[in-house]
Amino acid sequence: MNHQKALTTYIAAFVAELVQSGVQDVVVSPGSRSTPMAMVMAQHPDLRLHIHVDERSAAFFALGMSKASGKPTAILCTSGTAAANYFPAIVEAYYSRVPLIVLTADRPHELRDVGAPQAIDQIHLYGKHVKWFVEMAPPEETNEMVRYARTVCARAASTSLSSPAGPVHLNFPFREPLIPDLENEDLFNFHERLDGYVQIEQGHLSLNQTVIEQMSGQLSSINNGIIICGQIDNDEFSEAVTELSTRLKFPILADPLSQLRSGNHDGSNIIDTYDTFLRNEDAKRIMKPDIIIRFGAVPVSKPLTIFLKENQDIRQIVVDGSEGWRDPSLIATQMVYCDEVQFCLAVSSTVESKASSEYLTKWLNLNKFTKEKLANVSLIKDLSEAKLFSQLTELLPEESTLFVGNSMPIRDLDTFFHFNQKSIHVMANRGANGIDGIVSSALGAATKRQPLYLILGDLTFFHDLNGLIASKLYQININIILINNNGGGIFSFLPQSNHPNNFELLFGTPLDLTFEHAVNLYNGHYELITDWSHFTSSLMQNMEKDGLKVMEVPTNRDKNLQEHRELLNDVSQEISRFVHGEFQ
Amino acid sequence: MNHQKALTTYIAAFVAELVQSGVQDVVVSPGSRSTPMAMVMAQHPDLRLHIHVDERSAAFFALGMSKASGKPTAILCTSGTAAANYFPAIVEAYYSRVPLIVLTADRPHELRDVGAPQAIDQIHLYGKHVKWFVEMAPPEETNEMVRYARTVCARAASTSLSSPAGPVHLNFPFREPLIPDLENEDLFNFHERLDGYVQIEQGHLSLNQTVIEQMSGQLSSINNGIIICGQIDNDEFSEAVTELSTRLKFPILADPLSQLRSGNHDGSNIIDTYDTFLRNEDAKRIMKPDIIIRFGAVPVSKPLTIFLKENQDIRQIVVDGSEGWRDPSLIATQMVYCDEVQFCLAVSSTVESKASSEYLTKWLNLNKFTKEKLANVSLIKDLSEAKLFSQLTELLPEESTLFVGNSMPIRDLDTFFHFNQKSIHVMANRGANGIDGIVSSALGAATKRQPLYLILGDLTFFHDLNGLIASKLYQININIILINNNGGGIFSFLPQSNHPNNFELLFGTPLDLTFEHAVNLYNGHYELITDWSHFTSSLMQNMEKDGLKVMEVPTNRDKNLQEHRELLNDVSQEISRFVHGEFQ
Repeated sequence: MNHQKALTTYIAAFVAELVQSGVQDVVVSPGSRSTPMAMVMAQHPDLRLHIHVDERSAAFFALGMSKASGKPTAILCTSGTAAANYFPAIVEAYYSRVPLIVLTADRPHELRDVGAPQAIDQIHLYGKHVKWFVEMAPPEETNEMVRYARTVCARAASTSLSSPAGPVHLNFPFREPLIPDLENEDLFNFHERLDGYVQIEQGHLSLNQTVIEQMSGQLSSINNGIIICGQIDNDEFSEAVTELSTRLKFPILADPLSQLRSGNHDGSNIIDTYDTFLRNEDAKRIMKPDIIIRFGAVPVSKPLTIFLKENQDIRQIVVDGSEGWRDPSLIATQMVYCDEVQFCLAVSSTVESKASSEYLTKWLNLNKFTKEKLANVSLIKDLSEAKLFSQLTELLPEESTLFVGNSMPIRDLDTFFHFNQKSIHVMANRGANGIDGIVSSALGAATKRQPLYLILGDLTFFHDLNGLIASKLYQININIILINNNGGGIFSFLPQSNHPNNFELLFGTPLDLTFEHAVNLYNGHYELITDWSHFTSSLMQNMEKDGLKVMEVPTNRDKNLQEHRELLNDVSQEISRFVHGEFQ
Repeated sequence: MNHQKALTTYIAAFVAELVQSGVQDVVVSPGSRSTPMAMVMAQHPDLRLHIHVDERSAAFFALGMSKASGKPTAILCTSGTAAANYFPAIVEAYYSRVPLIVLTADRPHELRDVGAPQAIDQIHLYGKHVKWFVEMAPPEETNEMVRYARTVCARAASTSLSSPAGPVHLNFPFREPLIPDLENEDLFNFHERLDGYVQIEQGHLSLNQTVIEQMSGQLSSINNGIIICGQIDNDEFSEAVTELSTRLKFPILADPLSQLRSGNHDGSNIIDTYDTFLRNEDAKRIMKPDIIIRFGAVPVSKPLTIFLKENQDIRQIVVDGSEGWRDPSLIATQMVYCDEVQFCLAVSSTVESKASSEYLTKWLNLNKFTKEKLANVSLIKDLSEAKLFSQLTELLPEESTLFVGNSMPIRDLDTFFHFNQKSIHVMANRGANGIDGIVSSALGAATKRQPLYLILGDLTFFHDLNGLIASKLYQININIILINNNGGGIFSFLPQSNHPNNFELLFGTPLDLTFEHAVNLYNGHYELITDWSHFTSSLMQNMEKDGLKVMEVPTNRDKNLQEHRELLNDVSQEISRFVHGEFQ
């Protein structure tokens, strides 16, 4: 067997199939053991290579691309700790159901577990956090092994996409010498089955008509119901669920990641201030439902979570197209495994359409009232986190993408970002809710969606500063709104803050960084925002600029806490008055 | 059961035992779920807490502390991807045999696998890369559970230290509310067994006298033998192995990480230029041994590895005190599981001491000759990577610590750093040889050893830029010599470089970063070195300065390759002439 020919043919077959399977982007981290795969990939005319030295950022960058495109992205690295650096993004991809094809080069069998350099145990390296692991056979060029490489590749791509989507891991043992033969003009031309080795058609879970009719019958008979939509990534879902809501006359409590808070769909039943008014005991009492239907991931809002828990005595239906178990409070009375769009369409077409609902009106009125009261946030004169989020719907351009950091930003967005028809697509990493990898995820998304705005806190920005290099190397346009409250702002809202001893040491953790230096390192455009008009004008001016743009908005953790408390207390009092006046 | 009291007592017992077990440092990353452990730890008067927001850097920082102190360091983080960020350092700790106690907070059982925020599957999260994993019982305050917490802690510390040392992982499920009761003055005062729960005495592997005498008899009868010492961390080893060498008249080929190239021990049999002369076929022929005894990790030098492989027909003994299998070329004829120091002492005291050895003289003469020729590197006028490493023995102060990056720096050190009596301690991360986490590892080591010099390339520096924050937050003194050849210098020496198409894209990977900005971000002192006298004077002046000091030495990859090639070719020709003249 000619080693180089076997290496080349086997890998070329794999790469050809990767492209056939719909993979367009590969994020490659430089290394020696991965050389044959990297060199062959670079030859393929239909594969875009992105080079990223830091594998942790590289994997999150790929995650962002997959999230934004809905297509699996491949990542490639050398053996050793390089592969271990992928772990955080793989865990996030697993829990947020994002397709990712993880390709790691490995030492061949005879160099394993004998102290060879850069050799670690890569078998099942990511444990249960990948959907599929394959220890690839060493390269051979027989027809059987070419078919093997192509079939595994097709299966890997398909598995990464099948519901629930997620990461798959293929580990390639490569023996030296590692250089492939790239002289062959017809590198990717396999005569047998030119158009890909095997097409895989993915089915969706669907209920049979009898079950649908039973459920529709039940839903028709109940007047006081609500629909809750958490994060869900399906373009057809907005139309389908609003149709269901219209027929059932159930309000839709729309999480900011449901893609229901912004868009051209019918927004008349959308409730977008529940995070505020469900903090109010009077409101919760008056709004008690008889049934809840929930779609998508667990919602961001804590008041909503508590509301769900407090209503554990009622029917709670969770619809999941991926056979997960997304019910942390263990309150579901019915778990329905059915594609979400199909469920909405099937129920809508069989359910008896209701004429009107007093209960729906209550929700809508309270929502409208709360929104008016929350608008008072605009009266804040100083730079304020709350006000910033409330202004986004006005300031962001049509069809823009908003990537939101975890911890405080996603919560503030939940409270202050309300329904609009600008089709602003909202993204976040809510698989494991980490503060890691956000910069890279957003930059990956920005290669697919423009314009893109990233809002995040200083600790989150710091955690993935290395990610910024992608914007420099690939001239990716991104607008970063960096809320710098010098530390972990969320802890001021948690019980830890009542224990001042060691609070700053363990939770406040101020870093005292002048981030302008970091932006300069990556040739970005930096502005330290001084007041609201400065913020607005910078945001407008930056629309004309390319590349990395960072607007740093300095805020104060104590003041932020006070502002939130006062505002929400005021609003809550108003809500109590409203509830007593309106409904009782 | 009072939840808060149970939480507090159980954790306080664990923390008290941690201190009793010899743990002095904990690196804590901020988070909510880890709150009870962090707050209790902060109360302990004998525990130093280091806060590090980026868990990847945090774990490497702890690794550096453990490496430098020989004591286990604990790391603590919250649940979710935070824990996944520890993975690269854990893998490195596992393969480089460094003790580490990994403490991860987790959601309690009822919040697992149900879509709860920041809940991932942390059971066996690091797979086979920890020596021991324990899913801790939920906190209880019964005597049994207090004893359980203390015993697990004592075992964890002991296991992390027992040969081979390595990481252990304890996963703590914590239920809300998470605030412990710190009012108790006697938090760590456990009346039962005040001085720690259980003392653990670690045995060492030792051979019985019959086996030692057999081996000594064999070794006495062979004249042409060599000793090879790779990385080994045992203060008594230098004396023991030089004594063995003196008796056997075997030269010691001392890897830069053997701690034998610098120190007060007898250096007369130390061979420190083998990396150069074993590239020469004439030298290899003339130096063929009849037996090889190898200690420690696999040596850095590729020429030495090839020499070992080419001598697969002779006796090769590998001595390993930890029952590993450090023999990547599969050439060992005898694997000896015995503590290295005990082996040297036992054999030395039973072996017949040889009077003289022509073979040893040949090695010493060739070594001396090669060293003189390598000294020509000092003639290079421009800034040069080779020359830089050759000057270190002269420039570094007595008793300093030199932390060396992987890829090119460790190889250049191997070639150009020769025996001296300054007791310079050399460190590197050679478990998995990654370019990740080096800045943090060195900073961790710098908390234990001063003065500390870190030499690394630009990609390695970039990979762990976040690590620099520890130097800012904790005023750690460190001297960083940043060799900036704008990319992956090592690839110019590998076969990839013969394929110019895509070489820069895939392997050269220039980042074009102005690192001054990064140093400014962390309030460091930065200098861009312009010539040799500037380098020397800066190094001297920096000795008077505190904190982070970065000297950037710009070099050129192509010129570096050419310089190395020319120098080594010249020296090799001289060696051939010398070998023919001297020995034949």
